[in-house]
Amino acid sequence: MKKYSLKDIATLSGVSIATVSRVINDNGRFSEETRQKVLKVIEETGYKMNYNAKSLRMNRSFTIGILVPDISNYFFADVVQKIEEILFDKGYSTIICNTARSQEKETAYLKMLEGKGVDGLIVISGAEAFDFDYAPSDKHIPYICIDREPKTRKDTIFISSNHYQGAFKATEELINSGCQHPLIAMHSRKSTSTRERFSGFKDALKKNNIVFSSKNHLLNIDPDKQNFLKLIETYLTENPKIDGIFCINDSIALETMLVLRQLNKSVPKDIKIIGFDDTPAAKYAFPPLSSVKQDTDKIAKVAVDNLLNLILHPNETDQLLIVPVSLISRQSTNKP
Amino acid sequence: MKKYSLKDIATLSGVSIATVSRVINDNGRFSEETRQKVLKVIEETGYKMNYNAKSLRMNRSFTIGILVPDISNYFFADVVQKIEEILFDKGYSTIICNTARSQEKETAYLKMLEGKGVDGLIVISGAEAFDFDYAPSDKHIPYICIDREPKTRKDTIFISSNHYQGAFKATEELINSGCQHPLIAMHSRKSTSTRERFSGFKDALKKNNIVFSSKNHLLNIDPDKQNFLKLIETYLTENPKIDGIFCINDSIALETMLVLRQLNKSVPKDIKIIGFDDTPAAKYAFPPLSSVKQDTDKIAKVAVDNLLNLILHPNETDQLLIVPVSLISRQSTNKP
Repeated sequence: MKKYSLKDIATLSGVSIATVSRVINDNGRFSEETRQKVLKVIEETGYKMNYNAKSLRMNRSFTIGILVPDISNYFFADVVQKIEEILFDKGYSTIICNTARSQEKETAYLKMLEGKGVDGLIVISGAEAFDFDYAPSDKHIPYICIDREPKTRKDTIFISSNHYQGAFKATEELINSGCQHPLIAMHSRKSTSTRERFSGFKDALKKNNIVFSSKNHLLNIDPDKQNFLKLIETYLTENPKIDGIFCINDSIALETMLVLRQLNKSVPKDIKIIGFDDTPAAKYAFPPLSSVKQDTDKIAKVAVDNLLNLILHPNETDQLLIVPVSLISRQSTNKP
Repeated sequence: MKKYSLKDIATLSGVSIATVSRVINDNGRFSEETRQKVLKVIEETGYKMNYNAKSLRMNRSFTIGILVPDISNYFFADVVQKIEEILFDKGYSTIICNTARSQEKETAYLKMLEGKGVDGLIVISGAEAFDFDYAPSDKHIPYICIDREPKTRKDTIFISSNHYQGAFKATEELINSGCQHPLIAMHSRKSTSTRERFSGFKDALKKNNIVFSSKNHLLNIDPDKQNFLKLIETYLTENPKIDGIFCINDSIALETMLVLRQLNKSVPKDIKIIGFDDTPAAKYAFPPLSSVKQDTDKIAKVAVDNLLNLILHPNETDQLLIVPVSLISRQSTNKP
């Protein structure tokens, strides 16, 4: 097969190389007629862009990198998949990198993506002990953050669900169903979203005239799940009044429900439970688990729109975009 | 910050450029002492490989591309994450591309990965109406297939769980628990793994002297889940003897359990259910769902070992690697 160059495509289309570039990049002015003509030639010749060469020439690669802390997490996978879908429709390829919440991997993948010449970056959550502080040495790649507050917000765009609102709603769901002693169960990982959810829980107590104390209302979960049964058992023995648990995510909520069954505690009769994320397992659990649903369609759309705009207008940063969440009420928080 | 070249690193380490390359690539002969020396210089200088330049010079990019049909599917996400982990430890970055089971995306991502100069490819399942027929125009990138039988096996390496064995075991679990009229519920997508599971089901019936007929033992699931309740209801009305269902995956099994509850059928008393994949939701369901677990650790390891070997020895193809599965027996298939 003959290899065609950008110049060949321009000649065959009867337009300039710059016009072909604009059509390929959907960037700048050209008529619909021109677009159709160029695309037809590209199709007929089987012209395959040499991304490396094109990247060097145009300083654009039409690829976007996504750093995701854990693709086996339902929320992350869902958002990433939706972002990919929108980007693909706009002519961009998406490179997904799984950082496994490791700073070493995050740094390595940033370098790799920089080397591959991505046009933009989407950084999703993941920060545990470290902050995302992106200062590439060679050039500034536009990036946005989802669920991860950058060190200095004025340099970037930050998109997040309203975790505070979600936790507030979840806690009020417990209280409105009759709980007088709600507990928050959370892991000790202090991500942006965890901090917001914790605030929402505390403020919902306050609004309902319950004085928060770590001793009575906070259970830190050991990541080592071997001790989960023991942990819950001990806590409930020491705090027998607990009648509702807001779990920081569905995974903890589902584990808690399993353990409560082993301890012969009935959900929702003895203890009501609500999670966060509305993972697929929530509706199949018994009883079906109430949860808070993040609007992943909206998050994905806002992320792509803002990143592509940022690539064209690199100074339009300093934005905070908060996406509302919704409460999914199921049997685990039913009133008696 | 001064930018160091490969030559600078070689000079500072007191070794040749070729040796630095070998150390970086962990490829070829060098002493542990040399390795330590070079790595120390790289660390001290903050030497950052220019992947594009390096790629051009060495014809290696130390990146591996993975095409995955659906990262929100638990099995796929789990395998991909484990592959990434092993590759990272070996000095490779992993580029994950989500093809959404679309041929158009698959082709686009193959071109993109080719353009980015990946050293190898892992192609996971996903084929619905089309076969994976990879014939890059410029060069042959070594690749392996997981769960997806290539058109001509002699050109590639094919890794798969023993889906046949898993389905056989699952079906015998139903029969051994007392089922006399087992059914297989499957979507019409004819992937390699679906076909194998279907064979395993039929052969398990045969071994137990049950004559398979599509009418009595096969339920094709409409992908449109709106009709799921109606579909199951109609089928069970027409086939009232059904006392066990092997669902081709957990997702269908969990939906079926929800529907059976609505129809006032008790699991496992009236109908026993078993799924495939042992997704996280299985153990939280009520009753907890029996399933077949694929050995994702083993699949990931075999995939990486074989791909890296193939990169070094491009002719060692024509292999079929079958990884055993295990039965996870839970309450949904309990004996009366």
